[in-house]
Amino acid sequence: MTYCVGMMLDQGLVLMSDTRTNSGVDNISTFRKMFTWSVPGERIITLLAAGNLASTQAVISQLEERTKEPDERFNVLLESPTMFQVATEVGRLLRSTITESQGAHGERGQGRFTASMIVAGQIAGMEPRLFMVYPEGNFIEASQDTPFFQIGETKYGRPIILRGYDRSMTLEDGVKLLMVSFDSTLKANLSVGLPLDLQVIERDSFAPTHQHRVMADDPYFQAISSNWGDALKNAFHSLPNYSFNREEG
Amino acid sequence: MTYCVGMMLDQGLVLMSDTRTNSGVDNISTFRKMFTWSVPGERIITLLAAGNLASTQAVISQLEERTKEPDERFNVLLESPTMFQVATEVGRLLRSTITESQGAHGERGQGRFTASMIVAGQIAGMEPRLFMVYPEGNFIEASQDTPFFQIGETKYGRPIILRGYDRSMTLEDGVKLLMVSFDSTLKANLSVGLPLDLQVIERDSFAPTHQHRVMADDPYFQAISSNWGDALKNAFHSLPNYSFNREEG
Repeated sequence: MTYCVGMMLDQGLVLMSDTRTNSGVDNISTFRKMFTWSVPGERIITLLAAGNLASTQAVISQLEERTKEPDERFNVLLESPTMFQVATEVGRLLRSTITESQGAHGERGQGRFTASMIVAGQIAGMEPRLFMVYPEGNFIEASQDTPFFQIGETKYGRPIILRGYDRSMTLEDGVKLLMVSFDSTLKANLSVGLPLDLQVIERDSFAPTHQHRVMADDPYFQAISSNWGDALKNAFHSLPNYSFNREEG
Repeated sequence: MTYCVGMMLDQGLVLMSDTRTNSGVDNISTFRKMFTWSVPGERIITLLAAGNLASTQAVISQLEERTKEPDERFNVLLESPTMFQVATEVGRLLRSTITESQGAHGERGQGRFTASMIVAGQIAGMEPRLFMVYPEGNFIEASQDTPFFQIGETKYGRPIILRGYDRSMTLEDGVKLLMVSFDSTLKANLSVGLPLDLQVIERDSFAPTHQHRVMADDPYFQAISSNWGDALKNAFHSLPNYSFNREEG
């Protein structure tokens, strides 16, 4: 499993992904699931990947190969005029990769090779944009109403984002919110694991404003993890108490 | 979908279930998923049910029919000497019901007719006990290490229980904790819905200490729901702030 979140704030984008991959519970590895390409001052594009590792690696590799041979063919990541075209091409590659894998093994539909991706970034002259690309290759874009996307093991960490998110919050608070969301997920599901990759892209910076790999001994993540338990308990005790002396229903 | 929780505390059992059933998103009904039988002063047994409604209703009906004809055959719920034997019989009925349904429709394994149940209660002279019964008919019992069971849509409401649970908490605080857990789940998943059924069984009372149906206009649930958002935000802001001025990783 996997947990990745892409979040749009007024000030920019905050992205976070775990690194655990597993085939069963006894075959666990660490793989980066966050990939960034940038042309300083002109564009930055970051992909987050969840699902079958072979499928997502194949998509990333195909995007990478084109990046390394800029003369030979049109480079999607570095030359697409809009983020929409980037998302379209990522969707095309994702669908064709999954279709090929499933075709080769006679599987259909929601098979073993399924995967999804978050595409985030900004190109000069345009707004930052955030997309979620489905295994079928189609995609949706974040909006005022739905300003963040989660992929992978999304449920444990969702309530705190729903409650804590505020579009006008600082990028630092956005990081804090995702740290709490990931901590809740890590506590509940072994298939999501440290280290975590964090990236912050401030609006109009066209480069990663901040990048950090959160290891198991990361003092900030440890502080969040231990303080959040106490903070939650205090929040819980601040709620009105229940009384049995009410009408029976 | 469904969300049910059975929680064991030092002082007794706290049980809660939603009432929404759905076939797709456009065919929604309200059904009780909590069922209680008791012999005052001697035993109380409560079942919570999740999964295919026809399957769980068939199990409950079979248990009910036996309850109504006590002379004709051994009554599992009212005459079993131990909770273990009750759980065993519930498991046997659940497995045979699912097997029959799937057999009739040529389905296998984790098919459409799957269901699971929580069996809670106490028989005089013995400890309160709490079991989770799987579709296969086998079951596990709550312990010091795993003192609560969730069935149905379990993930959204799990982090707060993991963080807030304390075996020595009062029954009232147990209710409060489940209210928060259900509120988080309701906020995130349309297939879990009000009203909620609540039951509290104090140790050695052999009768429901408290029963309540939480409707949409329930003032306590509304207070929990609205205050929990603020309490969570306060908890969030009490955490140490993140700073970008750290080593890059």
